[in-house]
Amino acid sequence: MSNKLTPRETDYSKWYNEIVVQADLAENSAIRGCMIIKPYGYAIWEKMQAELDKMFKATGHENAYFPLFVPKSLFEAEEKNAEGFAKECAVVTHYRLKNDEDKPGKLKVDPKAKLEEELVVRPTSEAVIWNTYKSWIQSYRDLPILINQWANVVRWEMRTRLFLRTSEFLWQEGHTAHATKQEAIEETKLMNQVYADFVENFMAIPVIQGTKTSSERFAGAEETYCIEALMQDGKALQAGTSHFLGQNFAKAFDVKFTSDKGSLDYVWATSWGVSTRLIGALIMTHSDNKGLVLPPNLAPYQVVIVPIYKGAEQQKQIAQVALKIKLLLEEKNIRVKFDNRDKFKPGFKFNEYELKGVPIRIAIGPNDLKKGSVEIARRDNLSKTVISQEEVVNYIDLHLKEIQLALFDKAKSFREQKITTVDNFEDFKKILDKKGGFISAHWDGTELTEQAIKKETKATIRCIPLDFKEESGKCVYSGKDSNRRVLFARAY
Amino acid sequence: MSNKLTPRETDYSKWYNEIVVQADLAENSAIRGCMIIKPYGYAIWEKMQAELDKMFKATGHENAYFPLFVPKSLFEAEEKNAEGFAKECAVVTHYRLKNDEDKPGKLKVDPKAKLEEELVVRPTSEAVIWNTYKSWIQSYRDLPILINQWANVVRWEMRTRLFLRTSEFLWQEGHTAHATKQEAIEETKLMNQVYADFVENFMAIPVIQGTKTSSERFAGAEETYCIEALMQDGKALQAGTSHFLGQNFAKAFDVKFTSDKGSLDYVWATSWGVSTRLIGALIMTHSDNKGLVLPPNLAPYQVVIVPIYKGAEQQKQIAQVALKIKLLLEEKNIRVKFDNRDKFKPGFKFNEYELKGVPIRIAIGPNDLKKGSVEIARRDNLSKTVISQEEVVNYIDLHLKEIQLALFDKAKSFREQKITTVDNFEDFKKILDKKGGFISAHWDGTELTEQAIKKETKATIRCIPLDFKEESGKCVYSGKDSNRRVLFARAY
Repeated sequence: MSNKLTPRETDYSKWYNEIVVQADLAENSAIRGCMIIKPYGYAIWEKMQAELDKMFKATGHENAYFPLFVPKSLFEAEEKNAEGFAKECAVVTHYRLKNDEDKPGKLKVDPKAKLEEELVVRPTSEAVIWNTYKSWIQSYRDLPILINQWANVVRWEMRTRLFLRTSEFLWQEGHTAHATKQEAIEETKLMNQVYADFVENFMAIPVIQGTKTSSERFAGAEETYCIEALMQDGKALQAGTSHFLGQNFAKAFDVKFTSDKGSLDYVWATSWGVSTRLIGALIMTHSDNKGLVLPPNLAPYQVVIVPIYKGAEQQKQIAQVALKIKLLLEEKNIRVKFDNRDKFKPGFKFNEYELKGVPIRIAIGPNDLKKGSVEIARRDNLSKTVISQEEVVNYIDLHLKEIQLALFDKAKSFREQKITTVDNFEDFKKILDKKGGFISAHWDGTELTEQAIKKETKATIRCIPLDFKEESGKCVYSGKDSNRRVLFARAY
Repeated sequence: MSNKLTPRETDYSKWYNEIVVQADLAENSAIRGCMIIKPYGYAIWEKMQAELDKMFKATGHENAYFPLFVPKSLFEAEEKNAEGFAKECAVVTHYRLKNDEDKPGKLKVDPKAKLEEELVVRPTSEAVIWNTYKSWIQSYRDLPILINQWANVVRWEMRTRLFLRTSEFLWQEGHTAHATKQEAIEETKLMNQVYADFVENFMAIPVIQGTKTSSERFAGAEETYCIEALMQDGKALQAGTSHFLGQNFAKAFDVKFTSDKGSLDYVWATSWGVSTRLIGALIMTHSDNKGLVLPPNLAPYQVVIVPIYKGAEQQKQIAQVALKIKLLLEEKNIRVKFDNRDKFKPGFKFNEYELKGVPIRIAIGPNDLKKGSVEIARRDNLSKTVISQEEVVNYIDLHLKEIQLALFDKAKSFREQKITTVDNFEDFKKILDKKGGFISAHWDGTELTEQAIKKETKATIRCIPLDFKEESGKCVYSGKDSNRRVLFARAY
């Protein structure tokens, strides 16, 4: 474990990729654009899943599972949605391989096994699900339907990056059906709030809640709510979205219901999702030049114990102390790894766990045996301290909570300092290049201006913040009237 | 909820399908051969997943995630495996759709977006995983690798049945790599034992452990261990398999390791899996003409409380009692639903929960208010009893455990009574047609005989039981010498 990461300052993108690979989170596969999520990375995803799943259920949602394939005729039914995803679809056209007569031992697609109708590998499941809801919904009594699905989806990407943008990724997608527009809008907002709570409290990543401009909306949505995070390099990252779909899918799939007053109306829809992309956000929010930094809530093991010894007898004595501490910590539901491998030196192990972002390291050496002490090292601020063995459990219990909060506070200070209020386009460009981060600026509300700014600066409107203040001003680009500021940034 | 199921005796297959649909477990989708797992069915799968996942982790396995797609060149690398699955592969050939000029609003496959190499949607992941292990394994220090994956797989099926045989299904697949043959064989057996424990203790389905004959083995395996269950109609169902893969995949993907003695050798492999098919086995083991019967361990809710009242005041009084009981049960980690819906009558609810297999129903009516009693109904044996409200928690806690055991015992007696020892082919055919179940008979060990029996009777060798006794005899078909009996049956 050489732990020689390219410094963030030198090449942020390279640093990111090295962390993903060296911390054993994921790697590229032989399949273009698809990644392999390794056990350590997957263990983080499992923690995220468990917490999100609990939050979904606490808000009344149930899990279900819908097919991977979308027949072309269903896929194209909601035109905007189809148009939005058509360019990045993996398409199944055949259902059999056969021996290749020209190449012994090789296979080829059997032309006789061509499907009558092509199947799209789901890039998202609105089409399949609304085609199903059609038969589930007759009356207002059948509503609301509050369903979530944990699944893999495929969006063919030309330029991929581990976690951030991959052709196949894992996610959850909620799909709800409601009797009224108001109820659907409330659901959309509620789930965006659930995402914000999860990402802030569990992943320690501060986010800004807002809505997207029409050009940045999900294909087929009437309104897209989002949570936007800021990475250490000053670029924004969309961390989750929740869509109010209006009656678009109900109309495309003819899903009507009889209201309690006997009238027939189309059903109102929402959908919302977060994905393994969040792991990319996690890495780029907290990590440093020594490697990953994990918030305790997400760490596969929150504490690692490394013994420092010479000879078998000392190893045995230290192991006794270590195992006792491990047991006491586990009684408090703290996840602990005791690394007693003999073939690696302590320094090697220290590097490894720094790279893997384990929140707290306990080292126990011969001196500690004599003094009844241990050395505690915090991964987040790299501080070290020696405490007595009796104190360990309370100390760690307290400090895990403190680290969780400290990571959030640090990321939040960073972000606050990277939101710049700007009132002219020269400053806009200067700030974007020199400082990065979010730019709070007036915008005239037109797509024309939005696109012009994007073309000239690569910055997009990340969101119209939910907590915006009415404020008269002039568009930073066109000079036209504006009554509120929006947040611009370059983004992942 | 009319609860009119076709009786098992009349049409077992129809009865099965009706239970799946009417108990809200799953339904067919618009996509050929793919099913929709509805929330109630998925909640059962989640319980199964949680328990299996715990067992896998307790035996040292970690989860990871590998790509959905297998490039054709990887797929065909292990020839036997490729040959076994080639005929049922969904194949992705293109990565884009475009507007169909001839049909406004419709899409078509973009011929310019043809993949250079076709991608197979994974029917199983050995190829992708062993291609990956190649870069993970250099030395004996990298072994063993003990990984499991929860995933969807696709095997194109012409005749599908909900849960039992679907083109897409959910499963887990374990893939392990070992330094020695012996260790890999131990792992194969261990995981088969884990499956047997899970299915017997958690799903209350008795199984027979055995090995498959060479013609029934997994494509690419040297030995396949299995657990075989018996359904109520006398047909067998393969409930899980664990494969010793020898060095076949290591050779196909050139995965070698340096041993602790410095020699270079191919790595030894296992793989093992169970799927949503187990839910089919669950239904066909315990259910009756009133619907599903769920073992308490798997029931999304183990107890349902149905109030019987006239008027709002009585409803309120009963709800108070019900909620108190619910709370007390939940303190014991018992999953309880209180169905206080006013728009449905108690009889309707009774039917619904019988159909859905809820293990225990508590009914509380006006008389119970006076007497401080409740009525308890067991789903498994349909018995009813009245007990005092004070007794409820202990009574239910005890009876949930009892029901779990009773279901297993009942299924086991049924199965025992359906294993028939047979010594000539006339009896073999007669028993198969009249009684069904497993036939324990001598077999000469040749594939020729196995195929002849299959052709004539549709019975296959389900397994060579692990606990077989050496016993001299004559093959039931060929009359040739045999030293042990094997188990034949018609199977799902």
